[in-house]
Amino acid sequence: MVAPHADALIGHVRANRDRYLDELKAWIAVPSISAQPDHAADVRRSAEYAAERMRLAGLTEAVVLETGGHPVAYGAWLGAKGKPTILIYGHHDVQPADPLDLWTSPPFAAEVRNGKIYGRGSVDDKGQCLMHLAAIEAHLRVNGKLPLNVKVVIEGEEEIGSEHFEAFLAREKKRLACDVVVVSDTAVFAEDVPSLTTSLRGLVHWEITVRGPANDLHSGYYGGIVKNPLEALAQILAALKDAHGRIVVPGFYDDVSELSPHERAEVATLPLDPAKLANELGVPELAGESARLPLERMWFRPTLEVNGMYGGYQGAGQKTIIPSFAVAKVSARLVPHQDPARVKHAVTTFVQRVAPKGVRVEVEAHGDVRAVETSRDHPAVAAAARAMELGFGKAPVFIGTGGTIGPVSSFDRILHLPQVLIGVGLPDDAIHAPNEKFDLGQFFSGIETMTYLYDELARALK
Amino acid sequence: MVAPHADALIGHVRANRDRYLDELKAWIAVPSISAQPDHAADVRRSAEYAAERMRLAGLTEAVVLETGGHPVAYGAWLGAKGKPTILIYGHHDVQPADPLDLWTSPPFAAEVRNGKIYGRGSVDDKGQCLMHLAAIEAHLRVNGKLPLNVKVVIEGEEEIGSEHFEAFLAREKKRLACDVVVVSDTAVFAEDVPSLTTSLRGLVHWEITVRGPANDLHSGYYGGIVKNPLEALAQILAALKDAHGRIVVPGFYDDVSELSPHERAEVATLPLDPAKLANELGVPELAGESARLPLERMWFRPTLEVNGMYGGYQGAGQKTIIPSFAVAKVSARLVPHQDPARVKHAVTTFVQRVAPKGVRVEVEAHGDVRAVETSRDHPAVAAAARAMELGFGKAPVFIGTGGTIGPVSSFDRILHLPQVLIGVGLPDDAIHAPNEKFDLGQFFSGIETMTYLYDELARALK
Repeated sequence: MVAPHADALIGHVRANRDRYLDELKAWIAVPSISAQPDHAADVRRSAEYAAERMRLAGLTEAVVLETGGHPVAYGAWLGAKGKPTILIYGHHDVQPADPLDLWTSPPFAAEVRNGKIYGRGSVDDKGQCLMHLAAIEAHLRVNGKLPLNVKVVIEGEEEIGSEHFEAFLAREKKRLACDVVVVSDTAVFAEDVPSLTTSLRGLVHWEITVRGPANDLHSGYYGGIVKNPLEALAQILAALKDAHGRIVVPGFYDDVSELSPHERAEVATLPLDPAKLANELGVPELAGESARLPLERMWFRPTLEVNGMYGGYQGAGQKTIIPSFAVAKVSARLVPHQDPARVKHAVTTFVQRVAPKGVRVEVEAHGDVRAVETSRDHPAVAAAARAMELGFGKAPVFIGTGGTIGPVSSFDRILHLPQVLIGVGLPDDAIHAPNEKFDLGQFFSGIETMTYLYDELARALK
Repeated sequence: MVAPHADALIGHVRANRDRYLDELKAWIAVPSISAQPDHAADVRRSAEYAAERMRLAGLTEAVVLETGGHPVAYGAWLGAKGKPTILIYGHHDVQPADPLDLWTSPPFAAEVRNGKIYGRGSVDDKGQCLMHLAAIEAHLRVNGKLPLNVKVVIEGEEEIGSEHFEAFLAREKKRLACDVVVVSDTAVFAEDVPSLTTSLRGLVHWEITVRGPANDLHSGYYGGIVKNPLEALAQILAALKDAHGRIVVPGFYDDVSELSPHERAEVATLPLDPAKLANELGVPELAGESARLPLERMWFRPTLEVNGMYGGYQGAGQKTIIPSFAVAKVSARLVPHQDPARVKHAVTTFVQRVAPKGVRVEVEAHGDVRAVETSRDHPAVAAAARAMELGFGKAPVFIGTGGTIGPVSSFDRILHLPQVLIGVGLPDDAIHAPNEKFDLGQFFSGIETMTYLYDELARALK
């Protein structure tokens, strides 16, 4: 099935694998943690690295664009007159790396072990951006051209909700004009199951601060007369769900649709062994809404999770205080039709309503990412499926993901663009966690997939 | 009322106030945080400082004694043949200083502002130990002798439950033999209300660890199928009390006695304005068991407080994870007749029973400090009341304290010794919290009180 010119392209990308790994290591070495203001300069350096890599790939334009927040790296090759244009989206910012002591090798000094490269951002999303830059480079070096026009946007705020990205899209609408968006920031269903993602969950989040006494108090002197902020926060968080794992915030599920019988049957055909998955994750058993399939809970049901919490003494031994305050970071994954603003308001109102007396509760709500469903019927999706079959030797299945890519939501809602979600991460890549890795087999097959993808899209969209 | 020789003693301590302040600053500068293993050498230096200060006071013996944990400073002057012997107890270890950013001046660089000295350990308990060393020094310098035999024990593990102190007492029983124990590690009821403390609460504590997935998980990929350890911990903590602030752990209140009508009436006569106290503490209103008087809740009712809690992401911004684990530090203040072992077992059992499915819960229980009631009828207590009236110009009232002094419990239970609890801290000293301070008026009147105390005790006990 490989077209003659494809042989040369594949030969090129196979011959350069070591260099791609070196490039990925160098990029990972830039700790572009968008959530931490201390790392703002690193996020900028990471954007500059991306632009430099775009130039190396042969893109004729390669610049760092300001957004008001962390910058975007933008590149383009527009030499295919009369041909369609694709916009490739990825992100160069990364999640925080803590807890650092749980990493086997340092998060920003990437190391290859057993056919995997370990480092923060290895698969989410620097490695997946690099797949495209390597594939573009192959076309431009081997053929001197690409089969269609390519624009590449590598964002710097994806891990913090892409706060400035919609304004950037609106401002750069002309520059970013295209026929289809290609996003590689997702995972396949399993190592032997190449997959295209057709639905993503949305995301909103809250920071709940419970304030009690002006200072930490001695728990002996004042224990018994002051409401403990950690106790109050625990009571608030415990009030969010019932014993069956269902969120009891009024209105939370109002806009949530049930799966159709066809969709439910499709989900049921995908292999998932709850006991095996629980064992892999290290939990005694799976949890959540007990009446629904695990994959339904992961992809098509909204969630409400405590992502972090702190208050009082956290050091060695004990410190017998009533803490002055307690904080919880909470987030919700949303499913199609849920309105982020409505969900934010419902939870904020509920938290204030159930807050016990004797403390003051502040709730800040953030984020505005709707869930997305992409059309499976678009010719670009069929083209992507063919490219993936060529790259991985097996036709892909269609899956959902419980994750969120804010810009996918923005492209959908603001620009009404068709999108192809073609990512090659594995479910156990530990993204957002210690020991994030990218399997080299997935990385190299991903590069080959993208090399095919541009030809397939050129044919499908003409 | 001042005896002729007392004039000279009081003259001496008044003339040396600046030096006492310098000494207190130097002692505070040694960060003797017993809870933090990193500070073990500092706790030892603090014991050595105490022994050096004992020598300066004129004690003929002054040594650092090993305990198996942090050391004790011990000193004695036994030149009053045929006279009674008192044992003065205090502690030289301090609470951790965090959160550091809430201190106006650094916790270990003490600063005098507005007639108060600010620093960790200023009043709890280095400053109060120094009152005795200054008073002893005055007797020995002015008169060349003390009116009775004095032994001084300054311990290094009071803030972590005095783990090795009972074994130390047992081992050093002969060396520590005495007629009465004098403890200055308590506060008065209010600035104008000198007080002697006749009851203290006990203390036990727990560390609850909830373990979920082996690693932090991406809350998008896994949200909906894994029990969140922070959610589980919040549910456990919320299950400990009912809506009226009453602890629902079966058996928790089994051995708790109700106050007699006389005791309740006495408590009711002490001035306490709940709205004013709430305002001083910075809370919207007082909380706790609503059917009982605030002072009863503070002194004569057991508590269960979350002293600290952590899990997941605590940095700036958000990190959308399901954390691998969550930890809470919980402690209970006990009242007379409660058995620490029984309470520890009851709470541990309850926590395991209410733990939700899908996580593993570990509970470690520590501490063994019973509550104490001292006899008001002992002649030493009357002597202490006279000394306090001389030092503060006003007869003291008898009060309880919600706090805990483990060694007071040990002296009571192991050695069956009468004790005088004569401390001069103020309720707003912020002990165990940022900006701990010692009011200089209380400090200097405290030194004068102790100067009188030895004469009064010599007379009362002969």
